[in-house]
Amino acid sequence: MKENVQFSGIEALKKGADFFHPGLSVDCVVLGFHKGMLKILLTKYKGFNEWMLPGSFILKNENIDDAAYRILKDRTGLDKVYLNQFYLFGNLNRNRIFKESSRETFKILYGTDVPEDHWYLQRIMTVGYYALVEFSKVKLRETGYEGEEIRWFDLHEEISFHADHKQIIEKALETIRLNLGTIPVGRELLSEKFTMTELRVLYESLLGHNLDRRNFQRKILSLDFINNLNEQRRGGAHKSPFLYSFDAEKYELALRKGFISTNWEVF
Amino acid sequence: MKENVQFSGIEALKKGADFFHPGLSVDCVVLGFHKGMLKILLTKYKGFNEWMLPGSFILKNENIDDAAYRILKDRTGLDKVYLNQFYLFGNLNRNRIFKESSRETFKILYGTDVPEDHWYLQRIMTVGYYALVEFSKVKLRETGYEGEEIRWFDLHEEISFHADHKQIIEKALETIRLNLGTIPVGRELLSEKFTMTELRVLYESLLGHNLDRRNFQRKILSLDFINNLNEQRRGGAHKSPFLYSFDAEKYELALRKGFISTNWEVF
Repeated sequence: MKENVQFSGIEALKKGADFFHPGLSVDCVVLGFHKGMLKILLTKYKGFNEWMLPGSFILKNENIDDAAYRILKDRTGLDKVYLNQFYLFGNLNRNRIFKESSRETFKILYGTDVPEDHWYLQRIMTVGYYALVEFSKVKLRETGYEGEEIRWFDLHEEISFHADHKQIIEKALETIRLNLGTIPVGRELLSEKFTMTELRVLYESLLGHNLDRRNFQRKILSLDFINNLNEQRRGGAHKSPFLYSFDAEKYELALRKGFISTNWEVF
Repeated sequence: MKENVQFSGIEALKKGADFFHPGLSVDCVVLGFHKGMLKILLTKYKGFNEWMLPGSFILKNENIDDAAYRILKDRTGLDKVYLNQFYLFGNLNRNRIFKESSRETFKILYGTDVPEDHWYLQRIMTVGYYALVEFSKVKLRETGYEGEEIRWFDLHEEISFHADHKQIIEKALETIRLNLGTIPVGRELLSEKFTMTELRVLYESLLGHNLDRRNFQRKILSLDFINNLNEQRRGGAHKSPFLYSFDAEKYELALRKGFISTNWEVF
């Protein structure tokens, strides 16, 4: 099987039943953090108005995680990405929405109606992965197959989403929020050296509410996995803030135990 | 479609491709708690030596959650069960193990070899659900389809498991352990009235280590969602312990926020 056979457009759609696992796709909620804002990576095919999560079908001889890694590598150029499976979406309501939009997709991409018994119109479930990537390291692919456009959005922008992709994003964020004590959001989303403000704003963005600046600093430092580098970031309009980094070993240990309650009011 | 068509044995296996979603099953990790022990519900088909999780395929017109509820209702008689999806298992290694055992299953059940291109021998992924049930309320079905035997085991008994079912159970327990602050294990697994020892032993069993008796009592009571009923359980060999119950509203609120860190050492 040729490596990129899954991206060969109309051929893939025609013959997909031969090389994809039936009735299942993978969709990735790819999050980054830049200038104090959570970002999400979305794609759009030529001729469409709606934005989609980067996704793919799963090859018959491919592990599910590997399909997710392949999707990420293809769009961002990143080989090693922190990602986790979080939910299988497949209720009948999804099916109805998806069928309509699939019919439309086929028509726009290939100018013909898809036959009613085609594999692409059957019920398709999708397994969601969330990925946390360091924004500055991502090299977005310029133009993809079928003129696929790919770009970052602010997470809270008004976006016109394909099918149930907005719900998939919400479920990903809920999962991350409930597991903030065990997911290395700081390590994966920030640069190696970061300011205390960047770390706090990251948690605030994920939680959806503000945290007390002084309490946050006191508590996070008391957990003993962050090093003050005694180095300041210069060049900003304001006073030069101190830079910090994670102590890899202690951070890992804290994550294994879960270093915070999900109850941030008492964190 | 007849309601129980999925249980009609060889007919279902022969014609499954017509009414099941392809390449996907549901398996349920059903946990109970009885006399201080975590219990798991397992099933075994006639002629087999290995125990399995209660499972099924998903009907083409059925929501995934509904397949899980159907499995539970069928085996335990319970209509309302607390259950959550936790992971989609489907790597290629599973496929290889499963294919061999499926071939064997078919042979034992029906005395014939299954044709190599049969839907039942294709790659089958399974989505895991964990269910928490009140042991005393479960009425196990006497004998199921194909002479299916069903019974409770102590979770830590040595059990000979089918295919990758042991790994599925381990992943379920890991998920529950990581989310102990937001899953109502006490409400779902204990009787309405419970002793402080029962509650502590339940958490100890899920965590896999002991907790300090006095600290546990002090901390859990400080969370203010447990009522001392000022009522004692009599009749045991030891002194009569006090009974407690959950304050439904306060407990729910605490669960929404996550009332404990996963780090029980500092709980």
